[in-house]
Amino acid sequence: MAKRFMSERNMKFLLYEVFDCESLTQFNYYKDHNRKMFDLVIKEAVNLGKDLLYPIYEEMDRKPPELVNGEVKVHPKVRSINREFAAGGWMTSRTPYEHGGEQLPAMVAGLCEFIFQCANFSASVYTGLTGGAAHLIETFGSKEQYDTYIPPMRTGTWQGTMALTEPEAGSSLGDISTIAEPADDGYYLIKGQKIFISAGDHDAADNIVHLLLAKIPGSPPGVKGISLFIVPKKRIEPDGSLVANDVVTSGVYHKLGYRGCPIVQLGIGDKNDCRGFLVGEANHGLKYMFQMMNGARIGVGLSATALATAAYYASLEYTQTRKQGRKLDQKDPTKPPVPIIEHADVKRMLLFQKAVSEGSQSLLLLCTKYTDLLLVTTGEEREKYNLLLEVLTPIVKSYPSEMGILSISQGLQCLGGSGFCDDYPLEQYYRDCRIHPIHEGTTGIQGMDLLGRKVLMKNGKAFELYNSELFGTIEKAKRLPELLPLAVELENALTDLQAITGHLVTIAQQQGPESFLADSVLYLELFGIVTIAWQWLMQGMAAQNALNTGAKGKDVNFYEGKIYTLRYFYGYELPKRLGLLKRLKDSDNLTVEMSPDHFMD
Amino acid sequence: MAKRFMSERNMKFLLYEVFDCESLTQFNYYKDHNRKMFDLVIKEAVNLGKDLLYPIYEEMDRKPPELVNGEVKVHPKVRSINREFAAGGWMTSRTPYEHGGEQLPAMVAGLCEFIFQCANFSASVYTGLTGGAAHLIETFGSKEQYDTYIPPMRTGTWQGTMALTEPEAGSSLGDISTIAEPADDGYYLIKGQKIFISAGDHDAADNIVHLLLAKIPGSPPGVKGISLFIVPKKRIEPDGSLVANDVVTSGVYHKLGYRGCPIVQLGIGDKNDCRGFLVGEANHGLKYMFQMMNGARIGVGLSATALATAAYYASLEYTQTRKQGRKLDQKDPTKPPVPIIEHADVKRMLLFQKAVSEGSQSLLLLCTKYTDLLLVTTGEEREKYNLLLEVLTPIVKSYPSEMGILSISQGLQCLGGSGFCDDYPLEQYYRDCRIHPIHEGTTGIQGMDLLGRKVLMKNGKAFELYNSELFGTIEKAKRLPELLPLAVELENALTDLQAITGHLVTIAQQQGPESFLADSVLYLELFGIVTIAWQWLMQGMAAQNALNTGAKGKDVNFYEGKIYTLRYFYGYELPKRLGLLKRLKDSDNLTVEMSPDHFMD
Repeated sequence: MAKRFMSERNMKFLLYEVFDCESLTQFNYYKDHNRKMFDLVIKEAVNLGKDLLYPIYEEMDRKPPELVNGEVKVHPKVRSINREFAAGGWMTSRTPYEHGGEQLPAMVAGLCEFIFQCANFSASVYTGLTGGAAHLIETFGSKEQYDTYIPPMRTGTWQGTMALTEPEAGSSLGDISTIAEPADDGYYLIKGQKIFISAGDHDAADNIVHLLLAKIPGSPPGVKGISLFIVPKKRIEPDGSLVANDVVTSGVYHKLGYRGCPIVQLGIGDKNDCRGFLVGEANHGLKYMFQMMNGARIGVGLSATALATAAYYASLEYTQTRKQGRKLDQKDPTKPPVPIIEHADVKRMLLFQKAVSEGSQSLLLLCTKYTDLLLVTTGEEREKYNLLLEVLTPIVKSYPSEMGILSISQGLQCLGGSGFCDDYPLEQYYRDCRIHPIHEGTTGIQGMDLLGRKVLMKNGKAFELYNSELFGTIEKAKRLPELLPLAVELENALTDLQAITGHLVTIAQQQGPESFLADSVLYLELFGIVTIAWQWLMQGMAAQNALNTGAKGKDVNFYEGKIYTLRYFYGYELPKRLGLLKRLKDSDNLTVEMSPDHFMD
Repeated sequence: MAKRFMSERNMKFLLYEVFDCESLTQFNYYKDHNRKMFDLVIKEAVNLGKDLLYPIYEEMDRKPPELVNGEVKVHPKVRSINREFAAGGWMTSRTPYEHGGEQLPAMVAGLCEFIFQCANFSASVYTGLTGGAAHLIETFGSKEQYDTYIPPMRTGTWQGTMALTEPEAGSSLGDISTIAEPADDGYYLIKGQKIFISAGDHDAADNIVHLLLAKIPGSPPGVKGISLFIVPKKRIEPDGSLVANDVVTSGVYHKLGYRGCPIVQLGIGDKNDCRGFLVGEANHGLKYMFQMMNGARIGVGLSATALATAAYYASLEYTQTRKQGRKLDQKDPTKPPVPIIEHADVKRMLLFQKAVSEGSQSLLLLCTKYTDLLLVTTGEEREKYNLLLEVLTPIVKSYPSEMGILSISQGLQCLGGSGFCDDYPLEQYYRDCRIHPIHEGTTGIQGMDLLGRKVLMKNGKAFELYNSELFGTIEKAKRLPELLPLAVELENALTDLQAITGHLVTIAQQQGPESFLADSVLYLELFGIVTIAWQWLMQGMAAQNALNTGAKGKDVNFYEGKIYTLRYFYGYELPKRLGLLKRLKDSDNLTVEMSPDHFMD
């Protein structure tokens, strides 16, 4: 185990110096809070991460959940962790006062979740899922549903889930075939199968509350006929007792990583005795679920960034202590070897990790700031934050997920053969992180969402707003002579992004959706690079300003490190856009034209 | 398990249609062979792969080697596999007649090794290592050493290893501290520790023969004082009996993948009773070892390509059968879903895998052809093949290793959630392949080898020869109107590569080795992309010629598939050079300038 799994210094830099979280306290909704309190909350989260979560990160991986006699056994500490999280108010930190929460800004609450995930990704998923499910009931459920499910969920004794995927319906949710047949007593009889359900069953919870998508017979085909139900594992009898609700775990997946949390298959209503309770109106299920899903997508970005961050610090620690070889201009073999962090190529590998981790952290904080501002603004201003969040959601989901894999792989590489062995944590981070480009909408789905929906939405207004945010940063950065050339680079990159977007929209009009979206994953990658370049310019401005106004001591290293990483990003990462642009401009429509038969021999 | 793990059709296309393996039989050395025999050998290798190796690929992973009471237990089938390989002549297929081999071209022998590795990477490592070690003794050992060790190694009963790495000496071999003290009876007393020794101990072999690097006291410091020794686990007494030679396995690594083969730590001479036998002359050890190492590096490229290939076929099979979603211009949700291979984005992911796998296979065959030609040519011609092999070795080691990881990751992604679970083989391929950028010289080492040694060697002659080979292909391809634009693309890419090489050499002269080599990994990546683009142009020429001369039936699909993949490579992969070139031209020397302190906070 490495000594560190994240940097408080970096978090506070982003929170206060880059994104001015304190400015939120000027709004009535957040007026009870102040920086001192934020710092205390963060300190407490760090301690919890250190003391409760990090020590069992490895152990939870080595003893994965198993299905024993119909029961899913998880690590014995999960039960107490969930309860401790609930008791400490961590599940309700961003919940409004009126619902019994602490009404903390998402910026701070999200940072605490990030800390927990850096410490132990799997362990922090349980309460995260429960929180999301509870929020869904809170928003769209009836008072009775609220009163029934929220209290035990918010004490960490009941588990919440999202139950969407089925054997024949993953990316294409419109094809779900789970049926909800109305019964006389106001409930529905549910029948079907759900697969890939995270925390979908386990012995650390007294009950499981599935937020489940199903179709009511006679509803429209496709996504327009999906309804949302609460389907508890055990239903509540009038006398308050819990009885089995015909939800049976048919299997636990054996997974590459993310092994501390069970993912299960569920058989639902095999005995025709599974009762589900409609949430909101029939056939509006997907819309409701997307409230949870959008949060979940940002959550995936958070988890991916957390794993990349923890891996970076483990890798950094190794390079500081491991001695091997000499500087290349030092040929005398009798001189002692140097720590490998002194080799330029190792610094490059570390800079890549730092750039991905801290660039993604920055984007996440910005997105949570927009989330916070949504709650306290109205009219056009609110619409602005809403649209920015819409356009950034596929980026904040996919950039950390895809780049996190590469970043952790470079982290592992820094350890050489030791990185491949389980004496060091890198191999586990490498396994754990591979889920992120898959769950809550694959990278392919995010690409289509960005180019096919978000960029076009409201006549391109979301994309326009994105552009003006970036131009705002560019204009400010140009005023700092040290950053002027980088600001110009970003301006060029943004101009290219606008041009290629226009070009692709023309293809949509002339050639239809297939050709338009064939390379949407490349467009997503390009968009992600430009977005993270923007984040680095923002960080660079804050760092340069601090250096120009007399930063001292350790801070000088910290800020100079930020400037080096900014230069790294613009030197090594931003140029990757050139290859992507060349392809996106290319008129060879080969992936559309090619037939599946061409893969045969 | 997928139905296929490789394509015989593709191998024969490369062997006969692209690289004209039959032309080798015009040389006296290969005159006993012919195409019919090559086909029979390949057929037999495929059968062995299917029947003996592939069925236990998963099982060997699930039951990894363990150290029990000082003995390393491996899968029970390893013993019979090694013997069957030996009995079938597979360990000596490329060994000359005079040493009891079949004297097959390396093109064919290498292809058979490739087939075995596609079927089961770990299982095929054992005899591969023994073969390499035996070849080293054959080349540099004494007659007595030959007679003592070669026969039991060549029957698959004794295991050979390369024992280089030590706790304090991995990439920097000059720092090894294992000592070889001369004793009176002509042997040396060996004392030290070796780590990361593949197949370094196991119960499927009756003895282990370590080809071990150590230093004789008084020898020069650094790499110039390294000698090569044979150090058996059990030494041979005058009466022929085997007695323990004080080589003790102190641990077996628990690894991310490659679990079917043990990697061990060895304590050597802890009781001052380990005898080693000098191979060749003292202090020439590294030079000798590099004969094995160069072969091992090509072998790593072969293994990486094999894993990427097997993963590609598993991924392809899934996309052909898994149905999900509809074509993007088909909005009717009541229409049935289509196999996901019909989605353009999935075809793109498959094309990436096909491009990496078949592009790397092509380069490997070319390298083995050069190996074959080395044996039958003399003078300047021989020097040409030697230099081409020198310059291509870091490429053929690193391109499949690095790109194989990305390719298998895309393969896993094609399966969505199923790719993350061990019901499908993708997660194992993903774990297994991560070793390749690490062992036998990391990617960082390969980058320095390419730019710092190979490109400069003999006044740049190796690089000149590389260029003229590529220009030869470009000129020929230009004569095919269908390929003319692609040939021009490659010409431009090659011109850029020449220019940046010149630029970097100037930096070497002006700023010294640190700045020169700081981005050598990016240079290696660029060089790799151009090299594989060359391979695809060669394949495209063969395919286009076949199409133009009346290919029929299934062959039309096969050749058209090659042309699509060629277009894919030039459309999606070759443009990646633009970002690399931009960085390599950049004068911001940040990774050299930056201090380790800048990573602190």
